Amino acid sequence: MKLFEPLNVGGMLLPNRIMVPAMVTRLSGEDGFVNGDITDRYVRYAHGGAGLIVVEAMAVHKAKSGPLLRISDDQFIPGLAALARRIHDTSDSKIVPQIIHFMKVAKSGWRQTIDMLSIADIDRIVEEFGAAVARAREAQFDGAELHSAHAYTLASFLSRANPRKDMYGGDTLEGRLHLIERIFENIRKKVGEDFPVGVRFLADEFIKDGYTVSDAKLIGLRLAQLGAAYLSLSVGGKFEDAVHLPGQVPYPYTGYSGDRCMPGDWYPAMPHAHFSADIKSFIKAHGFDTPVATAGKISDPDDAERLVSTGAVDIIGIARGLLADPDWPHKVLQGKRERIVRCDYCNVCKHLDGTHTRVICALWPQGALQAPPDDRLAAAPYWDEVTGANLTVSVGDGKVALKWKKAAGAARYDVCRTDQLGNVQIVDAVKVTRWEDHNLLAGMPYRYQVRAYGSAGQGGVSSNAITVTLPLPEFAMRIQAPFADGHSR
Amino acid sequence: MKLFEPLNVGGMLLPNRIMVPAMVTRLSGEDGFVNGDITDRYVRYAHGGAGLIVVEAMAVHKAKSGPLLRISDDQFIPGLAALARRIHDTSDSKIVPQIIHFMKVAKSGWRQTIDMLSIADIDRIVEEFGAAVARAREAQFDGAELHSAHAYTLASFLSRANPRKDMYGGDTLEGRLHLIERIFENIRKKVGEDFPVGVRFLADEFIKDGYTVSDAKLIGLRLAQLGAAYLSLSVGGKFEDAVHLPGQVPYPYTGYSGDRCMPGDWYPAMPHAHFSADIKSFIKAHGFDTPVATAGKISDPDDAERLVSTGAVDIIGIARGLLADPDWPHKVLQGKRERIVRCDYCNVCKHLDGTHTRVICALWPQGALQAPPDDRLAAAPYWDEVTGANLTVSVGDGKVALKWKKAAGAARYDVCRTDQLGNVQIVDAVKVTRWEDHNLLAGMPYRYQVRAYGSAGQGGVSSNAITVTLPLPEFAMRIQAPFADGHSR
Repeated sequence: MKLFEPLNVGGMLLPNRIMVPAMVTRLSGEDGFVNGDITDRYVRYAHGGAGLIVVEAMAVHKAKSGPLLRISDDQFIPGLAALARRIHDTSDSKIVPQIIHFMKVAKSGWRQTIDMLSIADIDRIVEEFGAAVARAREAQFDGAELHSAHAYTLASFLSRANPRKDMYGGDTLEGRLHLIERIFENIRKKVGEDFPVGVRFLADEFIKDGYTVSDAKLIGLRLAQLGAAYLSLSVGGKFEDAVHLPGQVPYPYTGYSGDRCMPGDWYPAMPHAHFSADIKSFIKAHGFDTPVATAGKISDPDDAERLVSTGAVDIIGIARGLLADPDWPHKVLQGKRERIVRCDYCNVCKHLDGTHTRVICALWPQGALQAPPDDRLAAAPYWDEVTGANLTVSVGDGKVALKWKKAAGAARYDVCRTDQLGNVQIVDAVKVTRWEDHNLLAGMPYRYQVRAYGSAGQGGVSSNAITVTLPLPEFAMRIQAPFADGHSR
Repeated sequence: MKLFEPLNVGGMLLPNRIMVPAMVTRLSGEDGFVNGDITDRYVRYAHGGAGLIVVEAMAVHKAKSGPLLRISDDQFIPGLAALARRIHDTSDSKIVPQIIHFMKVAKSGWRQTIDMLSIADIDRIVEEFGAAVARAREAQFDGAELHSAHAYTLASFLSRANPRKDMYGGDTLEGRLHLIERIFENIRKKVGEDFPVGVRFLADEFIKDGYTVSDAKLIGLRLAQLGAAYLSLSVGGKFEDAVHLPGQVPYPYTGYSGDRCMPGDWYPAMPHAHFSADIKSFIKAHGFDTPVATAGKISDPDDAERLVSTGAVDIIGIARGLLADPDWPHKVLQGKRERIVRCDYCNVCKHLDGTHTRVICALWPQGALQAPPDDRLAAAPYWDEVTGANLTVSVGDGKVALKWKKAAGAARYDVCRTDQLGNVQIVDAVKVTRWEDHNLLAGMPYRYQVRAYGSAGQGGVSSNAITVTLPLPEFAMRIQAPFADGHSR
């Protein structure tokens, strides 16, 4: 598979094209130092075989925030260096920190916007990013990534809603690009030409009057011209449409743009990959081979392979899917796809981030702070207590209700549904022994099967399969009768 | 071109695959009767050669609203019949009314939601739709279209945000589909099987927690099963994210979902066509040939042809583009594409609708209530006063400023820009003789040319062309130097 071929990214050789995008863990203290929990989280990704690990956003400045890593002072370097060393000792994975500058927000709902920044403030941000990249290099990271996406400072400059009237905005695309250009210039002064610096930015802001892929292509081209090692695309996640709950600090993933940023179970697979492909194709047409990474609800190995083998993109970012199962890369490579713990896009992880709580996956065993041990190393046996016809189904009121027997040792169950076209979908993953399907069309056969996972996360055998068809309401049957041959008039 | 091949839509034979989607005109009085201005608007589309004309939404009920057509009583039939007759006398175009039910809204921002409807209210809506379709048939329309899109009653039932707890919602897709099923049943009782009834619905709600194309596929399949003559896809346009201005009735196109519904000039071409193609492909895989119509910023004839010739969709809806130039179909068919008055997606039309003002196109001659006369019939000569090197350009501050001489008889000018890849774009259409480009990338050549149109709307010759490259800021040039061969590292 092309997905597992190495890739040269600005001089850093990724062992494969699978990336852990930056994900907040809320595992650090407010002091901003790397701790054991954080180290365990990233080492786990290295164990699982991801080619590029982007460490969660760490602040380049000292502004107060909740639990958040910091790279704003030399005192953070030893901890960061220890983390990078652990990854390098564990695997061939490359590791880069995502570095971030953010504006102030208050519980009142007030937030600082970029038009409040003086030129001296902007000069300071330029310096802070340069110093942070220099610290990343000193800590022996393989590169760094500028966080220029979502609701944060750099993205607010790139935004079509940039309100500044001066050379850092002024209602022109060039003005919006000015800050990140200066930051790249300063980074090159500070660390030279051979330290790879990628950029994460938005393919579409998904807000009213926000920019679309039309601008993102031009932004991507400029970043390529500036020597960005890679372009990593995200979407949405803005403050502009955030829902402010009284007494709480605004959280930029609570509005529609937050839906898009981390698309939930009601979204189709890969809803944004086509934007990344458009941007890749555009910069390529202008002579740049800069690798492009995409992310957003990619979970199927065949989808991932298709995206890289067709050249649509170069790197596959899997965030929630690798949180659920860091062994996704190894399991795919070893032909053990059926053992992957599949993310069901329930977004508990998103909710935990939003409440500044330590981010875990709801699919892990109760109480676990990290993904269960790598069963490839632990050689855990397949868990096989679930056998026979234990699944029963009842239908009515536009729903299918599933029930099954709890089996000893079962920690959770994937509910698999196969539609009339043969598409298999994990429609939910639950820890209880019942589930209802509210989102199906009457008159169509659906085949259900439940798959149990053991408490160590290892995959179990599947239950019996039951095919059910919700009856069409009587009047719909009568209406449908003239077309019962399956063809419209 | 396949675009100009006839298409059988549930028994109505379209002369080609170009559709005028329903567009509010605000030309009617509050009495709801067809008047001369409205008739002129639709006859103009027929003159221009659109295959299917969907008349603006007309209410099936008596609820108060601004200027809006009505089909809620037999007294409206003669006026509607006269309109249908005029279209049929003018052309082979088919004409259907879009019929709508909407909920109450108040200037306070309050709006009635569907959970406030009693079962008796719902039964009444079912009857109102049935009676309205029967009136459409009596008025000799070729069919009818149910408005089940945007912020209106039927769409609110289909919505993933449907709040009802009973059989018309109940948190199931089947519940959400229940009302439209009953309406189809009643329509068949009232008008029989042979009167084509299409449905417009949303491919994606584009609101927080709204439905996506995943549900739209299932909705489309059910509508096909119910015998819908065609499926016409739109997106967004919801109340949920509308911006409420104090003292004004909420207008459902003021939020992000409104941006998506009528994508402005900062959107790429055809941002939603892929949804329609997904839905077409899904219902086809289930054995249904129901024609699918798409719409949303389609202006290029080659794009339109590609969509139908590849089978991605069957019908091309062009709303703002046909408002700007109803002769688009004839001009394409006759090989006179360069004479098309191209929509620049300035959305003045959208703004006029939002303020309940008569909807015109800013590209029409000043004061005109209708598109200029069909120059194919009027045989107006090409207007050729603009010649020679009249365009001048200056650059600076991240902008390119264009100026040109006003020529006698010129009513407006298209500003055309060609990028480095050879893509020609009409970046704006203006009535003044200057324009600034704020949205271009420094270091890239752009070729500008201005094309003048005469006061009768006829196309003129183009100005001289000027190619300019905005200089890269000095530091960006230095940064870029190592990659001056056009390739990244």
